[in-house]
Amino acid sequence: MPDDALIDRYAELAVRSGLNLQPGQQLVLTAPLEAAPLVARVAEHAYRAGASLVTPLYNDDAVTLARFRHAPDEAFDVAAGWLYDGTAAAFRGNAARMAIAGDDPALLSGQNPDKVARANRARSRAYKPAMELITSFAINWSIVAYPTRAWARSVFPDLPEDEAVERLWGAILACTRADQPDPVAAWKAHAAELDRRATWLNERRFHSLRYRGPGTDLTLGLADDHEWLSAGGKAQNGVYCLANIPTEEVFTMPHRDRAEGTVRSTKPLSYQGTLIDGIRVRFEGGRIVEARADRGEETLQSLLSTDEGAARLGEVALVPQSSPISQSGLLFNNTLYDENAASHIAVGQAYPSTIRGGATRPAEELAERGMNRSLVHVDWMIGSGEIDVDGVHADGRHEPVMRAGEWAN
Amino acid sequence: MPDDALIDRYAELAVRSGLNLQPGQQLVLTAPLEAAPLVARVAEHAYRAGASLVTPLYNDDAVTLARFRHAPDEAFDVAAGWLYDGTAAAFRGNAARMAIAGDDPALLSGQNPDKVARANRARSRAYKPAMELITSFAINWSIVAYPTRAWARSVFPDLPEDEAVERLWGAILACTRADQPDPVAAWKAHAAELDRRATWLNERRFHSLRYRGPGTDLTLGLADDHEWLSAGGKAQNGVYCLANIPTEEVFTMPHRDRAEGTVRSTKPLSYQGTLIDGIRVRFEGGRIVEARADRGEETLQSLLSTDEGAARLGEVALVPQSSPISQSGLLFNNTLYDENAASHIAVGQAYPSTIRGGATRPAEELAERGMNRSLVHVDWMIGSGEIDVDGVHADGRHEPVMRAGEWAN
Repeated sequence: MPDDALIDRYAELAVRSGLNLQPGQQLVLTAPLEAAPLVARVAEHAYRAGASLVTPLYNDDAVTLARFRHAPDEAFDVAAGWLYDGTAAAFRGNAARMAIAGDDPALLSGQNPDKVARANRARSRAYKPAMELITSFAINWSIVAYPTRAWARSVFPDLPEDEAVERLWGAILACTRADQPDPVAAWKAHAAELDRRATWLNERRFHSLRYRGPGTDLTLGLADDHEWLSAGGKAQNGVYCLANIPTEEVFTMPHRDRAEGTVRSTKPLSYQGTLIDGIRVRFEGGRIVEARADRGEETLQSLLSTDEGAARLGEVALVPQSSPISQSGLLFNNTLYDENAASHIAVGQAYPSTIRGGATRPAEELAERGMNRSLVHVDWMIGSGEIDVDGVHADGRHEPVMRAGEWAN
Repeated sequence: MPDDALIDRYAELAVRSGLNLQPGQQLVLTAPLEAAPLVARVAEHAYRAGASLVTPLYNDDAVTLARFRHAPDEAFDVAAGWLYDGTAAAFRGNAARMAIAGDDPALLSGQNPDKVARANRARSRAYKPAMELITSFAINWSIVAYPTRAWARSVFPDLPEDEAVERLWGAILACTRADQPDPVAAWKAHAAELDRRATWLNERRFHSLRYRGPGTDLTLGLADDHEWLSAGGKAQNGVYCLANIPTEEVFTMPHRDRAEGTVRSTKPLSYQGTLIDGIRVRFEGGRIVEARADRGEETLQSLLSTDEGAARLGEVALVPQSSPISQSGLLFNNTLYDENAASHIAVGQAYPSTIRGGATRPAEELAERGMNRSLVHVDWMIGSGEIDVDGVHADGRHEPVMRAGEWAN
């Protein structure tokens, strides 16, 4: 473990810059069991910031595994709806939400993919009311990471476990700028830069983006009235928060029906305990009509067939190759980190907030503008130093957005 | 830690004999963070028994302490109602409930008693719907214990911590009979013996009990239509369960308005992180009109003033001195254990099931028979080798029930 003062600074960053927790707010916090030392620090800073109550909900990998090993087959269509409904009620009561990521990326790799898929589907369905409050930014929320042993092993498979954890801590503290003298100020400056990128893209009002690179030739239509955002923004409860620490992306809403062409993933995806690698998909009319993967193809197929919206796009994000995460050269096997290392797209549920005024517009209006809906929202990486991105105007004019993975201007 | 096979047998006992978990049931499990190794074993046996989903809700002492140290004053009237409502919904959906006890008995001893009392009151109020489903045995539930380091230190303050934990493990495995060759069979026989005691008392239909001993001269009226029970019984969902492992008691409902005289506690009480010792109270018309304690008197007073029912009785239980817990000679600072070492009474909420047919009778009928209601239910020990108990019939006849702490027949 790094010294206490560094972990404490990281926890303070998560509460102050990430959540921007307000006096009187409750905080609902999900975390792997191993992250208890960070949870305690986060709780301390949350209470110092005026929290009325911090409730940690721990994920226990041993209990999850026991289910896949011993539960009867019927069990896998059941989810803890009572708990997710409770969480949704907390959000409706203005509780903030922090997720501490870091679960074992390969926890369920050896388990029956059909059971994994059914359990995920049941969970997604039961979690939907809470998830919608999160994706619509009803309240301020933020995700940070904790280097669990299993995650560290997957990032540094050749190192002894203690050393792997130490190295992952180092990478996390560097990528989150928690090792800088004034992390809160560093994030203020960085958030302003991301904001400037989003503003530039919003002024362009591109009709679509065109991606070209090895195995990729994709035209991705943007939703009408789409709005480019960065992870920093004002939630509906009026609180400015940074939804991810670290974050390097600007993102917006693709049009549900307007993706055409092929795209190849540039990093593996860890989806609910299974690694999916070497994804190649082809879009027609916005829908994935062909999907292959070198590894985890069955899980990919089952993800895409979750529901109608799971094979269409809900998010498109641009990230330069010069981001500190990309520069670390590490493959994190964790979406929070890897999605901020490279440009990416997500299948599934779109964020209403990525349409202008979308958070408060009725569902039909959002659908008319091309918003996708699904029980899932899963990001995967399609950016690299070999990818060029053009913005395409409604009249067909092209304008460079990224060249060889870097901002073109 | 004792060897894995013993812990595994203990977990199996909790699931099979304690909960008697049924195929398809969910299990909601509360536990201290440190108990994770036992939680994993319980989950395994629950899934083997056919559980559809096991959801552990961990208590995190560090987060609780952070609140008392850093939260603003207004925070202490807030509780996680959204979580307790969720739990109540799970019970209404037929989820079983297991509580793993073992929290630090002195966790909040150094904290402001007013804040502790306010937090407890807010929690009790928010927890009420779930608590009522538990006390009315809507579903099968059970409590077992795990020897956390803080608890072990409080039981063996003079031993090194590792040795204290080892000793407490030994005491737990002995008192729960988990160290016997066939614990499930041992509990079957023991439960039958408790049942026999309850039947004998039910046949007597005593009007009241008379306690005599040092500092104690108490006449305790029993509720009309009261029913003596043991911890083994059929829940409203039809499942036979053992609500406590270990259990040595038979218990019933006192009449809310009919306790007269004085009683002295014979063991300290650990109430929500504070130790209360040397309790002396005087009853008039069922109500505690004078209360003193050598230690923790302020916490005792605030407990008794929680609401109208908190100064009246909700349970009376008889336990012989020869119980294995009593024979261990240990003071456990934990109600699950200490209440099963000695006869006890509880202030606060009564169990409807301790009136004949009570679980399904309307509230007014239960009130007419003398049932007490409160946000709290707190047991304290009044039995010892120096206490005699008589049963008093409606016509004034006395009959010996216990002599010098042992069953009189």
